[in-house]
Amino acid sequence: MIIKVRAQSPEEEVNKLLEIIERWPVKVHRSDGIEHILLGLVGDTNSVDPTMILSHDIVEDVVRIAEPYKQANRRFHEQDTVIRIGDMAIGGGDLITIAGPCAVESREQIMTIAGKVKAAGADMLRGGAYKPRTSPYSFQGLGAEGLDLLMEAKAETGLPIVTEIMSVNDVDRFARDVDLIQVGARNMQNFTLLKELGHIRKPVLLKRGQSATIEDLLMSAEYIMDGGNTEVVLCERGLRTFENYSRNTLDLGAVPIIKSRSHLPVIVDPSHGSGKRFMVEPLALAAVAAGAYGIIVEVHNDPERALSDGQQSLYPEQFTTLVKKVKAVQAALSQFR
Amino acid sequence: MIIKVRAQSPEEEVNKLLEIIERWPVKVHRSDGIEHILLGLVGDTNSVDPTMILSHDIVEDVVRIAEPYKQANRRFHEQDTVIRIGDMAIGGGDLITIAGPCAVESREQIMTIAGKVKAAGADMLRGGAYKPRTSPYSFQGLGAEGLDLLMEAKAETGLPIVTEIMSVNDVDRFARDVDLIQVGARNMQNFTLLKELGHIRKPVLLKRGQSATIEDLLMSAEYIMDGGNTEVVLCERGLRTFENYSRNTLDLGAVPIIKSRSHLPVIVDPSHGSGKRFMVEPLALAAVAAGAYGIIVEVHNDPERALSDGQQSLYPEQFTTLVKKVKAVQAALSQFR
Amino acid sequence: MIIKVRAQSPEEEVNKLLEIIERWPVKVHRSDGIEHILLGLVGDTNSVDPTMILSHDIVEDVVRIAEPYKQANRRFHEQDTVIRIGDMAIGGGDLITIAGPCAVESREQIMTIAGKVKAAGADMLRGGAYKPRTSPYSFQGLGAEGLDLLMEAKAETGLPIVTEIMSVNDVDRFARDVDLIQVGARNMQNFTLLKELGHIRKPVLLKRGQSATIEDLLMSAEYIMDGGNTEVVLCERGLRTFENYSRNTLDLGAVPIIKSRSHLPVIVDPSHGSGKRFMVEPLALAAVAAGAYGIIVEVHNDPERALSDGQQSLYPEQFTTLVKKVKAVQAALSQFR
Amino acid sequence: MIIKVRAQSPEEEVNKLLEIIERWPVKVHRSDGIEHILLGLVGDTNSVDPTMILSHDIVEDVVRIAEPYKQANRRFHEQDTVIRIGDMAIGGGDLITIAGPCAVESREQIMTIAGKVKAAGADMLRGGAYKPRTSPYSFQGLGAEGLDLLMEAKAETGLPIVTEIMSVNDVDRFARDVDLIQVGARNMQNFTLLKELGHIRKPVLLKRGQSATIEDLLMSAEYIMDGGNTEVVLCERGLRTFENYSRNTLDLGAVPIIKSRSHLPVIVDPSHGSGKRFMVEPLALAAVAAGAYGIIVEVHNDPERALSDGQQSLYPEQFTTLVKKVKAVQAALSQFR
Repeated sequence: MIIKVRAQSPEEEVNKLLEIIERWPVKVHRSDGIEHILLGLVGDTNSVDPTMILSHDIVEDVVRIAEPYKQANRRFHEQDTVIRIGDMAIGGGDLITIAGPCAVESREQIMTIAGKVKAAGADMLRGGAYKPRTSPYSFQGLGAEGLDLLMEAKAETGLPIVTEIMSVNDVDRFARDVDLIQVGARNMQNFTLLKELGHIRKPVLLKRGQSATIEDLLMSAEYIMDGGNTEVVLCERGLRTFENYSRNTLDLGAVPIIKSRSHLPVIVDPSHGSGKRFMVEPLALAAVAAGAYGIIVEVHNDPERALSDGQQSLYPEQFTTLVKKVKAVQAALSQFR
Repeated sequence: MIIKVRAQSPEEEVNKLLEIIERWPVKVHRSDGIEHILLGLVGDTNSVDPTMILSHDIVEDVVRIAEPYKQANRRFHEQDTVIRIGDMAIGGGDLITIAGPCAVESREQIMTIAGKVKAAGADMLRGGAYKPRTSPYSFQGLGAEGLDLLMEAKAETGLPIVTEIMSVNDVDRFARDVDLIQVGARNMQNFTLLKELGHIRKPVLLKRGQSATIEDLLMSAEYIMDGGNTEVVLCERGLRTFENYSRNTLDLGAVPIIKSRSHLPVIVDPSHGSGKRFMVEPLALAAVAAGAYGIIVEVHNDPERALSDGQQSLYPEQFTTLVKKVKAVQAALSQFR
Repeated sequence: MIIKVRAQSPEEEVNKLLEIIERWPVKVHRSDGIEHILLGLVGDTNSVDPTMILSHDIVEDVVRIAEPYKQANRRFHEQDTVIRIGDMAIGGGDLITIAGPCAVESREQIMTIAGKVKAAGADMLRGGAYKPRTSPYSFQGLGAEGLDLLMEAKAETGLPIVTEIMSVNDVDRFARDVDLIQVGARNMQNFTLLKELGHIRKPVLLKRGQSATIEDLLMSAEYIMDGGNTEVVLCERGLRTFENYSRNTLDLGAVPIIKSRSHLPVIVDPSHGSGKRFMVEPLALAAVAAGAYGIIVEVHNDPERALSDGQQSLYPEQFTTLVKKVKAVQAALSQFR
Repeated sequence: MIIKVRAQSPEEEVNKLLEIIERWPVKVHRSDGIEHILLGLVGDTNSVDPTMILSHDIVEDVVRIAEPYKQANRRFHEQDTVIRIGDMAIGGGDLITIAGPCAVESREQIMTIAGKVKAAGADMLRGGAYKPRTSPYSFQGLGAEGLDLLMEAKAETGLPIVTEIMSVNDVDRFARDVDLIQVGARNMQNFTLLKELGHIRKPVLLKRGQSATIEDLLMSAEYIMDGGNTEVVLCERGLRTFENYSRNTLDLGAVPIIKSRSHLPVIVDPSHGSGKRFMVEPLALAAVAAGAYGIIVEVHNDPERALSDGQQSLYPEQFTTLVKKVKAVQAALSQFR
């Protein structure tokens, strides 16, 4: 950590700062320049709180050298984390496809779709039971009953299930019944929820918030891992930008960045990442070409009647083609590895 | 609501769309143009789900004419909502100042600061007991004990208290003991929490998320109001943008916009809105000049030793000056009313 | 065009508005609702200036139905525009690779790189002669001499050249000597320059500005096309967002969007789109998988000594591999067409 | 400048890096840690090109300690720059108001408005002769004739004039006839134009681009100052963000930031900064309260018939009130200085 202090600061003020720093297990190297006094901190800088340093008026800036995430950091864990769910391995060489409706709407709907995505080659079934909707007047999901239906669909098709958790009070049930527990973009910094998920032993799918940096995302993963639950799958699903033709701006650069900075697997959601059906296929292919370990896409047998997000849901036959194409891209690139 | 359909769409597809629309209590006016077929929907368009329309491939766009927020909408509630806490009125002619430390750290700290901000003229005391921190390794607040200390400070000074809630499981205690319950920016779309807060009868301070539009903010207020709790104070506290010299980009344009679109009172947080001590005063003054009903600022008696956000905390004497200045600005402008 | 007028506006004010509208060649359909009076404008709405309507205080909003770009619009020109340069066709089925250094630095440098990218299979040679640099203290390019060197490299290798224009005073020379004239992101709305480029007959590579919407980009293309120069290639090269680990956030969703809204070909620049060497390959592959007609990448034989942007330049051997991989991805996907 | 090198990098690669660094007039301090090797560069780091360092694969990051702007930097020029135009001083204690129409439309129009804003107390007259419009189909300004009309208005009222330059070929005329030459947001990084303006001796009003950081803005000022023209007024006029209710998001935090980092005066444009008439007054007042040295606002005698930007133009009587109010705010705050 480097502290940039205004040159010619009163020595008395510098000493006040040094006194604070002394409380942490670090050594200080001082170098006086014409424009600044630089203080280099060496040692366990992780315990240092930069805001306590910045609060001194003589300090212009604090530059962190070490990353603030430790357990998610590839630097301290070189090998890829591979998360096994049934006979799949997320983060290994496989390409995982997760598909299903935005929301579970009825037994018939989820059974039909589950059957179709299974036939098309999906590895897991997604479907929302608890739905975070911008408007209180929109369909809010079937709740616990929706989860029951997902479990039926799993029993029928054998597909493991992915669904979103919205309340700390549901953690026990999700830990028991859900194969991959999704934390949605809006709850990425719901730290109360993240801490609870750290105490269970079920894989978590952590979606990146619309205005979260990649570092923020890794810090949220750190909350879960710090509780002892190391099985976190990260998911890029689009940033909020000024471009409003698409619902979000999918940041595919996040894929190579996450892979270089963290050992956790990363997948991509081109459905929420675009918000438009015609964009889902090109962005899913792009995600795989960029190196994502999987994709999660919305599929609906009757999108025109879907109770949410029909506009970004693929028809089953579109999904069937998509699976073939992503496999073709992966096969084309695997020859170079 | 206007639906933009591709011109020359097969009549059969248009009929499928019209069938769906028929289920809602609206009338349709159709007009065939060269580039588009336009369908105008009149009636209770609030019940119409635009995603169900957009899911039809022949639909290019859906343009909402009515705002999606009803209870927060000034159109249906012309008079300003005034929220009374003790002998203060937020949203009336008064200018409310809320001040205190980022986090409650100890009895001595909160008592000292409470005394000083009271002496300076603050109307309410803020202080975090439960702290949402990006890093799990940062100080997470004193929790329930912090809330006890705030209550002591209130007993001592008479200042009503404002503090942030992070868990649905704390709603009962907050409803009993806290005067203005803060929902932080990161939880602005924690709908589970918002719904619970709708069921109590205590004022809520709803902070705008870093990537939330003003409409999103009003929709979140709608969640609370829909439960029957109509006392919501909105708070602008900065957007996340590419400008990284300041922690956030404070959007003061939100003040006149909210005042024109909603009857709910709006205040501003220049501390989080900037993240730098030297910016707090100019932005607080700007907020008042722009028409905010109040400001919420961080004040610490010893910011260099503050356990969080010291870099944006004012010294008590700075706050004393600030109160004088905001009052001078308000007085200067009140002569024109 | 739909005009949203406040309900119960004084009829006198509405009439003032209607009088203004009458001057344009449009018909008005009026519909009085409870919340709004809607005025639908039909006819040549392209000639209507929405700001003249919005300037009336009774008007709440103006909603455009027709897109403001005409010549770039696929609606009026269904077939893809194919731009021929030498024996290449941008926008046809081919995948075009453009490669070369950020800046031309010396004869030896450009000759070496030109030879290497040609050997690797590049279709065109890029290289900056005039360089837009954020700092006046950075290398500003060799100027006219740099262009001479590019022409030598073209003579030697047969590769057509792409280079950026920065001044209207250079249009004549560029029109004569350059095969594809680049307008950089910072000049995307330098309308004086765009107008001049409309008067020549050489293809233009128009890069999207860091904060330009896709509609803005198409409107800038419209400036060139309106002058009679219809050969415009669009290029996505990243948006400025809050994510600062990468230099920009590449918006690959722009590829399918542009292809659906415009007949002009679109290519992608993963070098500027990321700013980091290790991200160039994954993003180039992603761009091709998303459907881009080509890529433009920076390659340098000695990036550590490059006078600009070495950190995002590929080594020639990396480019050789990249060309093989993008072709593999394209081949894998072409079987589905 | 601090260079962060991957720990355990091959010594041979580190030496290659050190060799490059040796060419610059700096000394290197090396410190080997567990996670990184840190190289501290001391001396004239302004001559160091960070991209040449970043291009080495062993380098993880380069952290600049010194600001890249020198001439605009308050560190080397403590006193405020005061720019005199006629008997006004921008950057001194005065509050400057600049007002006039978006575009000059006719002799009658500009004469009428000039008379009215003069009577209301404006210090300078603004008006566009050359207009940068997103669409080629919108009114593009009267050009040279518009400038003639502005000069007539100046002759009549005595108000100095501010107008925007769009082409390097107009620099001579502007240098002769215009009192304060505006560079618009879209041309903020038109370096060809900035360099030319560095060679003249007339004050320049440099507007911040929609996606420009404050550092970018100062670097653009540096281009002008580097040519010898040190009279640059900076202008905040709004950022492009995801919030689309207003045209831009005005960043008033830029005012205290610029004042702390630079000695150049800063003013604010609340008209473009909001794009809505009802927001202009609150944001103008906020700008003054935040410490801006002046405001530039659009005023039109007949906004409903304005050929551009009527929706954000004040009526003359609104401007008259605004001038009284900004003066009241300034007076209220001046007692504390």
